Amino acid sequence: MSTVITEQQLLAMETRYRAALINSLGGFKSVVLLGTANAAGQTNLAIFSSFFHLGANPALCGIIIRPDVAPRHTLNNILETKSYTINHINEGIYRQAHQTSARYGGDESEFVQTGLTPFYVPGIHAPFVQQSHIQLACEFVQRADITLNGTILIIGKIVYIHLPENAIGTDGFIDIEKAGTVTCSGLDSYHTTKRLSRLSYAKPGVLPRDI
Amino acid sequence: MSTVITEQQLLAMETRYRAALINSLGGFKSVVLLGTANAAGQTNLAIFSSFFHLGANPALCGIIIRPDVAPRHTLNNILETKSYTINHINEGIYRQAHQTSARYGGDESEFVQTGLTPFYVPGIHAPFVQQSHIQLACEFVQRADITLNGTILIIGKIVYIHLPENAIGTDGFIDIEKAGTVTCSGLDSYHTTKRLSRLSYAKPGVLPRDI
Repeated sequence: MSTVITEQQLLAMETRYRAALINSLGGFKSVVLLGTANAAGQTNLAIFSSFFHLGANPALCGIIIRPDVAPRHTLNNILETKSYTINHINEGIYRQAHQTSARYGGDESEFVQTGLTPFYVPGIHAPFVQQSHIQLACEFVQRADITLNGTILIIGKIVYIHLPENAIGTDGFIDIEKAGTVTCSGLDSYHTTKRLSRLSYAKPGVLPRDI
Repeated sequence: MSTVITEQQLLAMETRYRAALINSLGGFKSVVLLGTANAAGQTNLAIFSSFFHLGANPALCGIIIRPDVAPRHTLNNILETKSYTINHINEGIYRQAHQTSARYGGDESEFVQTGLTPFYVPGIHAPFVQQSHIQLACEFVQRADITLNGTILIIGKIVYIHLPENAIGTDGFIDIEKAGTVTCSGLDSYHTTKRLSRLSYAKPGVLPRDI
């Protein structure tokens, strides 16, 4: 049995019910830990489920920052230092990752509160998460305000990548499943994955084959 | 063994190798079929791995359209008719979904070429994919050009949802894993998922529990 939800029904829904429903509709999401530090070195770590690829040359990625995340340490630190890290989440740390969304005060680092370990790379201001298996550093390049609902798109350039050597294929593909990266759906559901297949580049008239 | 890739190494990479690598780093992605039709009713169906949640009230979602997708039937149809559908992909149709990325001419609908079936709902111009288990209709509300690399962010309002009745929880959460929705990584890798758990709303001082 299938069911239909109309715009009128959406508008009439209780706020938290609608938030859970609409967040689930986006499909499986890229969920990451975003590490920053202010100019004085005070660290912050926050979970984001809105990380997305924007381009490979230059290597650009985007993240959406919500208006209701107050106080917005992540945004302030990115704008102040231009530096942030993106750390993939694996099965061993997804509970701690989720816990970073608790509203800690400005003087309480989520690293300390959740037991995740910061580590630093020379020349990069923001802290990485040691327990993560795939880590990137980004340099802030552009902010785009989405006035419709007060969300902010932060665009970054990928300047550093740290990953397991055996996860990189000969064609550049990174096997993030092998590296243990998890995905999420909705506001709070975490999932491991199982590959169906990789498919060949699509051409008219020929069905894609497994590669 | 882990390895490091620097910005200099990224810049020196062969173009297709870098594209595969950078696309993989974005984590698991929401992969959907986007259905449109021009004013005359000529249909188009295209796979996108950049669908993301933007807000629940109003219910907004975003999609990134790449500059190198020529001819851009999807973009033209959205701007012309303001209507598009988002159709989750399941294990039964991921090969056909991938095949929609082949560069068909303007008079060849991907529906016909891939064997996916269009269906229509009164009041909604764009076609849905019958074989999809979760389908949304969106109304175009805003375009934001990302001048850094020529990509375009299309923002839409969700106006209609069609989904399996047994996938909606009492709290509004939609179990997209139960509905068979798949995820992708990189340019060509498709995956089913297995839930680890849903976690309770995070609060300082209390570890999240399974819900």
